[in-house]
Amino acid sequence: LDGAFKINIDHHHSNSPYADINWIDPAAPAVGEMVFDLRHALGIRPTPEIAENLYCAIASDTGSFQFSNTTPRALAAATELARLGANPTGVAEKLYFNNSPEKILLLGRVLTTLTMNGRGTIAIISMFKSDTEALRLKEVDTEDMTTLARSIKGVEMVMFFKEMAPETFRVSLRSKGNANAALVAEHFGGGGHIHASGFTVYGPYERLIREIPATVEGLLD
Amino acid sequence: LDGAFKINIDHHHSNSPYADINWIDPAAPAVGEMVFDLRHALGIRPTPEIAENLYCAIASDTGSFQFSNTTPRALAAATELARLGANPTGVAEKLYFNNSPEKILLLGRVLTTLTMNGRGTIAIISMFKSDTEALRLKEVDTEDMTTLARSIKGVEMVMFFKEMAPETFRVSLRSKGNANAALVAEHFGGGGHIHASGFTVYGPYERLIREIPATVEGLLD
Repeated sequence: LDGAFKINIDHHHSNSPYADINWIDPAAPAVGEMVFDLRHALGIRPTPEIAENLYCAIASDTGSFQFSNTTPRALAAATELARLGANPTGVAEKLYFNNSPEKILLLGRVLTTLTMNGRGTIAIISMFKSDTEALRLKEVDTEDMTTLARSIKGVEMVMFFKEMAPETFRVSLRSKGNANAALVAEHFGGGGHIHASGFTVYGPYERLIREIPATVEGLLD
Repeated sequence: LDGAFKINIDHHHSNSPYADINWIDPAAPAVGEMVFDLRHALGIRPTPEIAENLYCAIASDTGSFQFSNTTPRALAAATELARLGANPTGVAEKLYFNNSPEKILLLGRVLTTLTMNGRGTIAIISMFKSDTEALRLKEVDTEDMTTLARSIKGVEMVMFFKEMAPETFRVSLRSKGNANAALVAEHFGGGGHIHASGFTVYGPYERLIREIPATVEGLLD
């Protein structure tokens, strides 16, 4: 791509303007919605196929119209894209009804490890190498596991311990509201965004699972 | 309510017109969308609170804009309701981020029981009295457990075995596409709709879990 003329369209604040044209709008609910707006300027009427792809981008970026970027603007774009031929059910099928049986079994195993801190603000779940090996899974999308743990009433932060090697755990943090996952990760030598971050810890699982959430509880105060 | 003047607004085909005024529109994506349309005729501008309740009804009826009733009409109503002050994130929080830790643990246990038929068209999950008793759960909403099993690629039908008493299982069926859950339930003396039905079976779990799905596989052909 080095020699090509590049256009960078994004709605993430953190985007670095690397291209020849950079259009970064953190106020936009989704990239799909930005590209959809662009069609006006270009005088293009999206085909049903293009409409479906843009609808998919919006549905995916808004977590199926559940995240805080589900603005009237995002919903209006989705409405027009459905009128132009996008199939909301087809998109949902592709995005959310595409799991393997092994992934659902793994989800079950991970959720049975759930523990909570005393106040009910931190949910802790864990995944072990023995789980993924028994199910012959290599790369797993674990995002909906944290989403389910985050769906517990009162939870401000999810800590997801993933065993990478003996006594080595990658901890993913997902937070809601004001709970700052980036600050917590930095405390443990990691990094990330306010609502999504991560760090690595070493030691026996039983000790980590007791000590780390206690420290995080203090940091959240 | 016996002496009162009754208005019945529904979008279910099966609704029996019991009221003084009956407005049943099976083509409507959601009741919330019908009530929303009614405001035009009545010349009412919904308050933000009314808008939020109607938005909630639409989001809930369409499974957060994932079911086949997610029409342009439903999305357009959602857009205008968001403009009138409905908060999509707040609604999603109340609908989907309201679980107890016990329910998530139960979800985990249930999902670890997953088995599939050889063809991968039937997903079988089970819940035992010992699970609900250990977690001190009485009434549990199990709908999202079947939704997760249904999210497996290629699955046409989910069979959810729920132990009601020793050797007594209530089997909930949830199907996709053309797979007729009502017909299967009727075969076993139960009943329901094409995509949601149920029946009761008696006998030792190990035998039921082997024989019933085999019979269902034959019925699906």
